[in-house]
This record gives sequence, C-alpha cells and structure tokens, in this order.
Amino acid sequence: MSVVNIAKTFERFSEHWSPKIVGELNGQLVKLVKFKGEFVWHHHDVEDEMFLVVRGSFDMHLRDRVERIHEGEFFIVPRGVEHKPVANEEAHVLLFEPASTLNTGNVRNERTKERLERL
Amino acid sequence: MSVVNIAKTFERFSEHWSPKIVGELNGQLVKLVKFKGEFVWHHHDVEDEMFLVVRGSFDMHLRDRVERIHEGEFFIVPRGVEHKPVANEEAHVLLFEPASTLNTGNVRNERTKERLERL
Repeated sequence: MSVVNIAKTFERFSEHWSPKIVGELNGQLVKLVKFKGEFVWHHHDVEDEMFLVVRGSFDMHLRDRVERIHEGEFFIVPRGVEHKPVANEEAHVLLFEPASTLNTGNVRNERTKERLERL
Repeated sequence: MSVVNIAKTFERFSEHWSPKIVGELNGQLVKLVKFKGEFVWHHHDVEDEMFLVVRGSFDMHLRDRVERIHEGEFFIVPRGVEHKPVANEEAHVLLFEPASTLNTGNVRNERTKERLERL
C-alpha cells in the first residue's frame, strides 16, 4: 500500500507497446504503457478497456471512426469492439482492465505480451 | 463510447464529497469527486478503492500513518482498511471502484450518497 507517482514510474521504462503493471484492485489491473507508432487491430471478447492519456495524445481507430484522445482525457472501449491505437508521437497511457486482458486481445503475434512486468 | 475530458467534467459541478459517475467498465465505476475538508473514517468490506489525484493534493489518514497524495499520483486502499481523506485545499480526485461501493463504506450518515449522478 504505497503512493504511486505516475510520471516517475513512466521514467522507469522506455519500450513501446509493453504494458507494465503498477496496481491491482478488485481483479482489475492498472497498467502504464508507452504508445508510439501503429498497433494491431484487435478486440477483447470479455473485457472492457479504459485508456487514460497522461502525456501526449493518440488516435483510437474504430471500424466506423477515429477518436483522438488527448492528455487529461479517457476513453473506454467496450468488449467486442475492434480497435487499433495509433500514436504519431510517443503517448503515455494509463490502462484499467481485468487481470485476464491480453494486450493484443483476440490476436497473437510479435506484439503480444504474455507476461507483464510489475513495477 | 465517447472521449471524456477530465478537467472539463470537473467544471460541471462544485459540491464536495459527492462523487459523479463518468464511466463504467467490467462492473467497475469511474467517478470524479471534489474533496475539501475532512471526511469520515470508514472502510469497505468487499471493495478495493483507487484514488488518483488530478488536481491539488490530499492526505489519506490510515490508522497507522498518513499518506499525502499529490497531483499525478494514485493510491489504492484495499478492502477492510479504515481510511479518512482530508483535503486542506480543494482536491480533484478520480476514483475507480466497484459499482457496489458506497462513499462512506460501513458508515451511514449525512455524508452518505445513496444515488450518484452520472455526468
């Protein structure tokens, strides 16, 4: 039970698209992730996912539109909804999602992270 | 499914200690609340609670210590742990907790909010 400084924790890693676990509550995980470039289209069958932008901004591509999410904003992608994050510049994002969530959802490829580091 | 700007949503209300629901995912609620002054000692029997400070700072009193949580920091209070938030100046806080969570936990008094507004 300790206070987590979000900006300082982001300084502890540099890889993109590799979420780090920084908190756990009620079976949900709090993760920090750096986005840069284009991720893969995917969806999560049984998990809703929240993206809160701490620094920068990114575009959440959905099949019918693109939502730009700026610093200080959040967006919830409901289960089943296909999405693809794209960040032209590096963006720092806090995720809330169930402990069962795989970063690439229904897709498994070189971007998939099976075991996440805890910071 | 829309982008939520946290600072702008805080401008939509002024009451203290009255959480507003701004998001829902996986049976958990995202709430915004303004703290000012001293809250009541309480605990939650079956819910862990996350406090993320968006503006200002506050002191989380625990039975064995006090943790100061600043802007850009978060703190998770596990179920069963008694706590009392105290904010000398107004603090803007994002909460993440199960939909079942009552703001005053095991205590019911004039501070208890039975039905929360959705913004």
